[in-house]
Formats: sequence, structure tokens, C-alpha cells
Amino acid sequence: MPVTKIFVANRGEIAVRIIRAARELGIATVQAVSAADRDMLAARLADEVVEIGPAHARKSYLDMDAVLRGAIESGADAIHPGYGFLSENAAFAEKVEQAGLVFIGPKAETIRAMGDKATARAMAAAAGVPTVPGSEGRVDGVEAALAVAETIGYPVMIKASAGGGGRGIRVAQDAGELATLIPQASAEALAAFGDGGLYLERFVGTARHVEVQILGDGTRAIHTYERECSLQRRRQKVWEEAPAACLTPEVREALCASAVRLAESVGYRGAGTLEYLYDAATGEFFFIEMNTRIQVEHPVSEMITGIDLVREMIRIAAGNPLAYSQADVRLKGHAIEVRINAEDAAKNFLPAPGTITGLRVPGGMGVRFDSMLYPGYSVPPFYDSLLGKLIVWDETRAGAIARLSRALGELEVSGLPTTTPLHKALAADAEVQAGAFHTRWLESWLETHPIDNPAS
Amino acid sequence: MPVTKIFVANRGEIAVRIIRAARELGIATVQAVSAADRDMLAARLADEVVEIGPAHARKSYLDMDAVLRGAIESGADAIHPGYGFLSENAAFAEKVEQAGLVFIGPKAETIRAMGDKATARAMAAAAGVPTVPGSEGRVDGVEAALAVAETIGYPVMIKASAGGGGRGIRVAQDAGELATLIPQASAEALAAFGDGGLYLERFVGTARHVEVQILGDGTRAIHTYERECSLQRRRQKVWEEAPAACLTPEVREALCASAVRLAESVGYRGAGTLEYLYDAATGEFFFIEMNTRIQVEHPVSEMITGIDLVREMIRIAAGNPLAYSQADVRLKGHAIEVRINAEDAAKNFLPAPGTITGLRVPGGMGVRFDSMLYPGYSVPPFYDSLLGKLIVWDETRAGAIARLSRALGELEVSGLPTTTPLHKALAADAEVQAGAFHTRWLESWLETHPIDNPAS
Repeated sequence: MPVTKIFVANRGEIAVRIIRAARELGIATVQAVSAADRDMLAARLADEVVEIGPAHARKSYLDMDAVLRGAIESGADAIHPGYGFLSENAAFAEKVEQAGLVFIGPKAETIRAMGDKATARAMAAAAGVPTVPGSEGRVDGVEAALAVAETIGYPVMIKASAGGGGRGIRVAQDAGELATLIPQASAEALAAFGDGGLYLERFVGTARHVEVQILGDGTRAIHTYERECSLQRRRQKVWEEAPAACLTPEVREALCASAVRLAESVGYRGAGTLEYLYDAATGEFFFIEMNTRIQVEHPVSEMITGIDLVREMIRIAAGNPLAYSQADVRLKGHAIEVRINAEDAAKNFLPAPGTITGLRVPGGMGVRFDSMLYPGYSVPPFYDSLLGKLIVWDETRAGAIARLSRALGELEVSGLPTTTPLHKALAADAEVQAGAFHTRWLESWLETHPIDNPAS
Repeated sequence: MPVTKIFVANRGEIAVRIIRAARELGIATVQAVSAADRDMLAARLADEVVEIGPAHARKSYLDMDAVLRGAIESGADAIHPGYGFLSENAAFAEKVEQAGLVFIGPKAETIRAMGDKATARAMAAAAGVPTVPGSEGRVDGVEAALAVAETIGYPVMIKASAGGGGRGIRVAQDAGELATLIPQASAEALAAFGDGGLYLERFVGTARHVEVQILGDGTRAIHTYERECSLQRRRQKVWEEAPAACLTPEVREALCASAVRLAESVGYRGAGTLEYLYDAATGEFFFIEMNTRIQVEHPVSEMITGIDLVREMIRIAAGNPLAYSQADVRLKGHAIEVRINAEDAAKNFLPAPGTITGLRVPGGMGVRFDSMLYPGYSVPPFYDSLLGKLIVWDETRAGAIARLSRALGELEVSGLPTTTPLHKALAADAEVQAGAFHTRWLESWLETHPIDNPAS
């Protein structure tokens, strides 16, 4: 089905990203905006703008009917959901297709299957993809949980089947703690996700977060190598790299092949990411979950392969087969992305919306800046704090870190505090430079490395 | 000899480019400024700033003693001359080395030899590099010129031995015209360059301008493929690409190998460019001249190879051998650079200095913006009109042109007219898209395609 006009059902930097890809393909764009977002950069760049509701996301970007109505009334023939919001909502994908529009993403059934973490785990196991030792599917009640925990060993993680993005995760050190936490976690999951289902996994103490980028056309899938996103704060990624410096070529090969296997086993369509824990001590990797959408950190994969992931997901949604074979995909160099958030690092990363009074964008060799910023823009307080992403590439990881430091020195965002000082400190840190970190490293490091915020 | 502090003896975007490369290498920078350039971007980014003279370039950027004094007094141990100004002045290179500083460029003798076009031609011939049929060295007087022209055939070009950048070139259609032009051209060359020497070359009517980027360490040289710069106005490059879409792989191989041969035959050190005419009708290429410095359009070569040319020229100047073998250099995709000049295309490209009142920098996948711009900056009227360069990369030439159009649409420079409207029109032109042009194509095209300037 041809795609000639895309309704961008998202905001911020990812809306800009989608418009760029569409424009390069000669496809028109309609930007959905809430009442608070009429002035955002994507609205300035799009061919048309449609207001879909008030500032509150539940009544605009998360309102399936409002989004669909906007798309239909604007004459769009496809919807790109970006990340977050409705991007992993199977019901929405179904509604879009029922309305005769193209959903730029996987089939609704894939979103649904992968959205249930326990089902995803089972499908991974069926495709021969290693998973963290844990419950086979959901655990119902304390007794069942205790029995499973005995076989996988403590400490164990309790996860919500319908959760994601690190939400709703608890760790039990022993049977007593597990018995207390299970009812609590189930009640919270029910409240948060409308589904109280839980599953258990072995807790890997000093794991690294690696993830494989996948592209599929429903029949065939390829990977564009992996990313490492171990530098996290409150389970939110802060700094992402590609490739993962901690992997040997052999482990990389096995990891990426496993992701392709799983993607092909579900007839995956579009761009997706398989997240894994990597235990550097043993060289083992374990599938955790699949994100059936484009991710914030996708540019690092683009930088090391030259493949425009958003363009390719649009092409695939329009019915084209994958334009690449696996042999076409060649890993070159190293890329790092840091998230520039409107947060005050000196105040425990308190979100800090405000007006951009000045902006100096870094440039030069190997530097890419994907942002929603322009001078005079007022960052609204209603949404997440991501302003943009600074992405660098160089032939080596050390070179990329030097380039990142250089580019961070050029970046000036006036009018509100940003996470730039955090990234400068990280880029200068010997352990970061050595790649010696894991998923809980950053939180410990922050306890002994207070970040000042000269820009605020 | 170690390089720890570089004196940047240039201005504008290339000064920014040099500072970026130095910083990524951990090398301090001192920016030379004229009195008119204290506020330029490079002065804001450098570690130190030294004023070397008044606005007039002859008394600042072109004043060898003032530059050298600034470098010595600031404690710099190396000088990067950029392009233009003193970059191809052999006497300056000598003075720098005599003062015990590193000249980041070739040996003075190489600059001198290549700076004399007739000598360069002879050296090319000796290295087995094809040259345009013409005089073997200088022609002295009308009689000699007539005799040479008989053997190479009319029309012939008369060039000044000491010229460059297209200056001082005339075309004679027949013997009568040649007899008239020779004394005129000699007198003008004497006035312009202090040297009345001339040489003759066959005039290739619909030639394309191709040039090969070279890196050498004094012993070994490599190429990083070729660029095509046929889109010129008044012999000034306007739009540059890499690789040259008009070449077959076989011609590319032969062309680039010839450049390496010549570079190695002169023990070339640093970054340099060999310029050729390419006759698409016959597949022949002819060496014209060598530029013994970094060039404005170097980023397109960086984009298709991943090699940071300015960083590598600094590393080589510091005594390191070339970090690359030829086999390391792999051509990937296609890059285009367009020059964003402060010129009013609607007024015959009249230079138009002014104050930047607003700036929107394009971003996203495959987009690089190397500029001297920031909001509030007043572009002084004393120097050339280059504000910056928009460079794009994509897997294919068609993709790169689509990306260029998209990025040009995002670029907004308020406060003065720029050449952005020209580039938008070129990117949308069917002949440009087909790559069907030669060095005189743009001037003809402009006669029938007046460029409006909505931004002015």
C-alpha cells in the first residue's frame, strides 16, 4: 500500500526525526500537536499541523480516537507512532489498520505478543534465544513464586508482565522478602498497567545492558548490530553506544544472530529492539524483552552502519521488502549518544522546563544533533524532559569519547539547566573511558560525583 | 617533534575546523585574529586569542612576521595555515620552520615546486601522470607560444605559472588572438603575482573538474578518493561531491593511483589535492595543478571514508607516520557539500555582509554543518563571503540530493542573504540530479534560472 502522507503521532525530537525521513522519501507529513505543542519544532517543519487535544497526553497523544480522527481528517494514509505514547499499543495498531491506514510498525499481534513479557520470554526460548533463568510464564500467587525462586536461586527479580521501561521491578533477597513483595507487586501492576500478572527472573548483579537493533519486512529480518546502554539512572538510559565495547566478536555474532532468529520466528515487520542482559564475567547473554518500535537511541546504530532506520521502517510499512541483506550491513567505527534532558543535575535531576534563550549547536566531523530545540522555544512542563540527543561517531571508541567531549564543549543551551554537565563529567571519567561499568554503576558513581550545573 | 599548542593562522569556518581537530587530539589552540575578527566563532572556541593586526588581511592574516610573532609569543609549537592566506606560501613555511615551529603542511620545497604550475606539470609528467597537452614548462614570448600552440591545437588556454584558483586564465581561439593575448597576459601576471611567466594548455571545452585527496607522511602517500567540483561560478566552486559520479570504477582507480604516484614522487607530507580535468567524452583525465593544503571541500572526502583529514594532517606534522594503508580506506556512499555564502543571488551574487539575527541549523542523519555562524554574529565585510558549508551523506547520490534538499529546507540564516536559494534550485534541477554538467554548465544555467532570494 503506497504511503504518500504520514501522520506523525508523537512530539519532540522523534517527531522531527520522522519528518526528516519522510521528506527525504518525498512523503508529505502532518504533525499531530497538543494545545501545548503548537510551537514545537516538528510543527514548524511539517507540511501540515493538526491539533488533536489539550496538553494532557491522555487527552491528546495517548487518545487513540483523537489521533486516528486527526489522521483521517488530514487525509494521511499512514501513521508513525514514534516511541512511547501509542507506539506499543496493539489495540491502536489494530484500529489504524481497520481504518484503512498504514501503521508504521509491526503487526498488532506482534506488539501484543511481545508486550506481554512472559509470552515474549517463551517465544524467545522457542527460538533458541537464551533467557534469564526464571519462571516459564506468569507465576500465580506466593506459593508458586516461592517454588520457582527455589529453582532459579536468590536474589530474584519480580517483574510485571505488562510492564516495561524498568517500571514495576522489585528484587527479593530471600523467600521471606519474596512472600511479602509478591502481593504488593501484583497490586501495583494491576493499578499501573491494568494487569496484575507477574513473572520471576534471576537477578544478574553486575549485568550490562546490551540490545540488538532489528529490521524485518515480515518475512526476512536483519540486525544492524548491537548497542550498549548500561549507563542508566533510575533505569532510564543516559548514555548509549554502538557497538557494545564489552563484547568479543564471537559473542557479538551469537547475540545478533539470536535476535534475528527471534525476529524472523515472529515474522517481525519494521524496526525493533531486543534487549538483553550481558554478564561480562561469564560471557552469557540473556534476552529480557523486545521493544516493538523505534528507540530513542537508534541513531548510534545508524552511525555505525550508515542505514537510515526510520526511512527503512517507512519503506517497509509501504510494502517494500527489506532493502538490505545481512551482508550489506557493515559495522564501522564507534558511536555514542548522550541524552540532553531539561533537568537540573545539581537538584537531583529535577525536570526543569523553561524557555530557550540561546542555542549553540555543535558541528563538524562525526557530530549529529537531533533535537527539538530552537532559540525562543518554550519547553512545556507536561511531557518528558528529553530535549535532544548529541550523537558522535569516530573510528574508535576513544576517538568518539574525545569527539563527544569536544562537541559537549560547543553545545550551549541557555535558559534552562540541562544534563550537559553530567555528560562532560562522564566523558572525562576514567572508568567510562575504560568501558568499566554496568547497569548500576552510574547511580553509585553519582553518589560520589556531584554534578554542578554552571549553566543553570 | 611533539605538537602541544597550535596557532591557528586563519579565520572563519576553517579556523573552527582546525580547533575541533586539535581539541579532539588534546592539543591546545591559539586563535589569531585581526581587529575585525575578535568576535568570530573560532575566537570563542579557542583556548587563547591573539590579535595579530588590523582588519586588512595584508596587515594581519597575510603578514608573515605578524603571524609568526603571534605564534611565538603565545608559546605555540605549531602553526596551521588553513586554506588561502599563507597556506601555500613557501617562504612562510620556511620562516616557521626556521623559528623552530612545526608548519602543519608540506615541506617548503614542495609548496614551491607545486606552486609553479609549469614545474608541477613537468613533475606530473615525470611521475607518469597525464597532463593536458601543452607547453613543456614556460613559454617565453609570442613566437614560442605560436609554435607550441601549433602542436597542441586551438583553442588554447594561457595560464600564469604563478597563478592559481582560476586567476589569470585566458583562452585564444586562433594564432592571431594568441599573439595579442600573450603580452597582455604576461604583463598582468607580473602585476598580479610578481612573475610574468606563462604556459599553454589545450582548452578542454566541456571538461569536468575532478580532484584527488591525498595524505602523505613524506615517505608514503594514500588517496581518500576523488571529488567532483564541476559546479562553479566564475571559477569558484559552489557545490562539491565525493565520489565523482561521472567516473567508472576503472577510471577512478587509474585517477587515484596517478595522484598517489605524484604525491609519493615528491615525498608529499600532509593533506593535498591534485586537480584534474576529466573529459567525459573520451574518459581521459589530465592533471592541472596541486593544492598543497587542506581544501574548503575536504569534508565530502571525510564523509565517504570516515577519515578525519585535519586530524591526520596534525598527526603527521607531529612526526607520526600515516595511520592508514590504502587498503584501510574504503569508499562508502555519496557526500555533497554546498557553500553557504553571504551573497545575494538576486543581485548577481553581490557579497552581503551583515549581522546574523537568527539561525536554525539543520540536523539529523547524514547532515553536517561546518560554519562560522552564531546568532548575533556580525559578518565583517573585509574577507571572503563563505559563511559555512552544509555537507550531507547518504548511501546513494540520489539519497544525498534528497537529504540535501531536506537540510536546506531546515537551514535558516536571518539578517543577510545567502546562497541557500541557489542550492535549493540546483538540488531540484533534473540535470544536476542526473549529474549532467561540466565546469561551464552552472554559468549557462544561471542565465536561464534567475535565483530569487526570499530570505533577503
